[in-house]
Amino acid sequence: MNERTFAEVLDRFETIVGPAHALRTEPDVEPYVHERRGLWTGRSPIVLRPGSVDEVSRIMALATGTGTAVVPQGGNTGLVGGGTPDMSGRQIVLSLSRLNRIREIDPRANTMTAEAGVVLQALHDAADGADRLFPLSLASQGSCQIGGNLSTNAGGIAVLSYGNTRELCLGVEVVLPTGEVFDDLRKLKKDNTGYDLKNLFVGAEGTLGIITAAVLKLFPKPRGREVAIAGLQSPEAALALLDRALERAGAGLTGFELIGTLPMEFALKHVPGTVRPLADAWPWYALLEVSSGRSEDEARATMEELLSAAMEAGSVGDAVLAGSIARQRGLWMLREGISDSQRFEGASIKHDISVPVASIPEFIARAAPAVASVSPGARIVCFGHMGDGNLHYNISQPVGADAQAFLDLYHSMNKAVHDVVRELNGSISAEHGIGRLKRDELAATAPAVGLDLMRRIKAAFDPAGIMNPGKVI
Amino acid sequence: MNERTFAEVLDRFETIVGPAHALRTEPDVEPYVHERRGLWTGRSPIVLRPGSVDEVSRIMALATGTGTAVVPQGGNTGLVGGGTPDMSGRQIVLSLSRLNRIREIDPRANTMTAEAGVVLQALHDAADGADRLFPLSLASQGSCQIGGNLSTNAGGIAVLSYGNTRELCLGVEVVLPTGEVFDDLRKLKKDNTGYDLKNLFVGAEGTLGIITAAVLKLFPKPRGREVAIAGLQSPEAALALLDRALERAGAGLTGFELIGTLPMEFALKHVPGTVRPLADAWPWYALLEVSSGRSEDEARATMEELLSAAMEAGSVGDAVLAGSIARQRGLWMLREGISDSQRFEGASIKHDISVPVASIPEFIARAAPAVASVSPGARIVCFGHMGDGNLHYNISQPVGADAQAFLDLYHSMNKAVHDVVRELNGSISAEHGIGRLKRDELAATAPAVGLDLMRRIKAAFDPAGIMNPGKVI
Repeated sequence: MNERTFAEVLDRFETIVGPAHALRTEPDVEPYVHERRGLWTGRSPIVLRPGSVDEVSRIMALATGTGTAVVPQGGNTGLVGGGTPDMSGRQIVLSLSRLNRIREIDPRANTMTAEAGVVLQALHDAADGADRLFPLSLASQGSCQIGGNLSTNAGGIAVLSYGNTRELCLGVEVVLPTGEVFDDLRKLKKDNTGYDLKNLFVGAEGTLGIITAAVLKLFPKPRGREVAIAGLQSPEAALALLDRALERAGAGLTGFELIGTLPMEFALKHVPGTVRPLADAWPWYALLEVSSGRSEDEARATMEELLSAAMEAGSVGDAVLAGSIARQRGLWMLREGISDSQRFEGASIKHDISVPVASIPEFIARAAPAVASVSPGARIVCFGHMGDGNLHYNISQPVGADAQAFLDLYHSMNKAVHDVVRELNGSISAEHGIGRLKRDELAATAPAVGLDLMRRIKAAFDPAGIMNPGKVI
Repeated sequence: MNERTFAEVLDRFETIVGPAHALRTEPDVEPYVHERRGLWTGRSPIVLRPGSVDEVSRIMALATGTGTAVVPQGGNTGLVGGGTPDMSGRQIVLSLSRLNRIREIDPRANTMTAEAGVVLQALHDAADGADRLFPLSLASQGSCQIGGNLSTNAGGIAVLSYGNTRELCLGVEVVLPTGEVFDDLRKLKKDNTGYDLKNLFVGAEGTLGIITAAVLKLFPKPRGREVAIAGLQSPEAALALLDRALERAGAGLTGFELIGTLPMEFALKHVPGTVRPLADAWPWYALLEVSSGRSEDEARATMEELLSAAMEAGSVGDAVLAGSIARQRGLWMLREGISDSQRFEGASIKHDISVPVASIPEFIARAAPAVASVSPGARIVCFGHMGDGNLHYNISQPVGADAQAFLDLYHSMNKAVHDVVRELNGSISAEHGIGRLKRDELAATAPAVGLDLMRRIKAAFDPAGIMNPGKVI
């Protein structure tokens, strides 16, 4: 397509949404073409902000008719470059932000039907207003959108008990590359009528179609909740504590986070208002949350019981219960502040890995020398969702070292850490997705049979290759 | 392919597994070509019983090379004709029965890796031996195999708390039509590296590939369990009780079954050893099970609490707790005996439907006149997994009517019931699958866009159409 024809096509896209919702000047386009940390940048001649599913459908029909590449975008909070265009200037951005209606809340069915552009926090608030819980909980919940959460199968801190975004979704509405609308907005807990299409679109990062709405699960709000922090000598002790907690609390164990001694010190040093939770510093900490449908007392009793048993068994050195909502928040603040606190310690190289839960101690033992071999003196900031086998295994530069020299080690550091992950049959992307960041690594290291199946699906759903090209596969 | 070439191809299949495991005489083949209730019958020139994944792989490579249709079969307990060949005599049966090794039990990771041919009961026993629970629980668990459970995404009585087979599976090993092996036997709770292939094979009823092994989730064994039965005036009262039970017990509510007054009387009349559970007969009953990771006392206290509250609120008329393991079994026996007890009441036409949980009362209210319009005097045997929105809405013939005349109403009865299901956005196959039984109805009534996507997947995975032809899609 020559420049003149392309400009005419852009005009036709603009006509669909109207000039007010077709951004074409550089300052208007700017916020949509960069990933917020500045790691990924791109160009786009137009950002379309459709206001209805019908408009999305017409945009896609035109995109198919003209062979125009489309990059769907939610809150643009992704961490792997999946939501921004490339540098070609030929990919158009389709922002779902204006599709932000909660179409229905059905407290009796425990479901909520929301459009892709609803901000996660707004879903929390709406659920809360109906005396229900929507448990998906992420650091970016004030700006990420549920369409992006679904497209990346987002995880977060409540997965242990409630599951990933995939498990929280009962049905989807998807606009296909042709503009056809796949309406599967069902509220069913059981449905065995053919292939599982829903789970194919969830986690596909916008490369198969555009999720425009979804039926989400709601849960009764727990009547009681208790949070505690335990000081531990080792990751093995954390695993023993996790086993015990799962046995006693079952699905009532709504959080189990591991925190290394270094990330704890980073949080205490850099996050305003944090307080050292135990008298001594420990090599490792576990942050536990127990919820009860019956009462505060039950949540507290369960927590006390499991911690006492663990202390008697020798796996826990010291522990404290929050005892009040304010102190519960304080303990969670320690955990949530870690990632951000790293920026005060210089450059960092981050990993989002998972291994089988029982292999966490082995991963930690084997990854440390691998990191040291790439960068002696690099500081391991190891923390994360231990109950899911998911660690944010981040590496801060050695004290006093040159930041850029450390960042130049990015690929060798990734390889060192991911090699250990692969040896333990783990995942190099537990919850952030593939996007552009890990596409080459996936292609280079994933088993050929699985990659081939993914390519066949991509070709079957998007034969023209216009859906978010250059991402995932 | 002429007869002579076909015979030569069969010889080559036989060579792969050896003559002892290639059944070719009519009496040997017989048990594999009929569905056990006799509803579906077929013919096959050979039943192959491979003893390894490599043999399965070589069978499929040969099948692709020769264009031979393959029908994978587990325990042959399916209810929709998905596991048996057609009448052509050209489809070969591939029985997974000899792939019956539990490859690994990992109590720390809470996983078990089992081959397709392991009988479900053997998985229960193995989990029990490792002090763990594998919760998938079906009437046919003494003979169904996990490969079939996975391929049909089987449901059962523990779905409410633990999920369908899909949710109980972390990873699969699949032999593709070409013979290639897709090895995705991972133990990860979080993995966002590309499209969700696992969930595509689970529930595909052997039409995309052959699941040869899977990683299954294990759970801590509850320390306490209580079962109760409640007498109710209406389905609305059952829904109110379910809401309350979910609120109090959360994921500790491990069972919530609805039983109509007629199925209760059928079970009491025809199942030896059953005892009327409440002093009076009630229009409806709910069977509840609560489990606790802490103690018997907690399970009992939770159950008492929620039933007392429901009685005070007026939704429960009468209720009794089992109080002992033997009486827990007795209450479950009432529920589990219903389906079988129907055969003493003449011919029956059965349905396996789901609707949004909150729509159960409306479904029941609307389906009854629809049934009566097809067969006045037909008796509605309504019971099932209310917590999942899934009812076995079975119809027994009118007393004294002609059985065959009633069975001749099969299609019009199905249509009457399924029309109500569709009006309520429900599913015509909640847990039994599509197979041959509901293939035409799916094709005729499912939205075209979804069917088209399924057909594209089928064509992408099985271009020659040799995987279980004539089933699902």
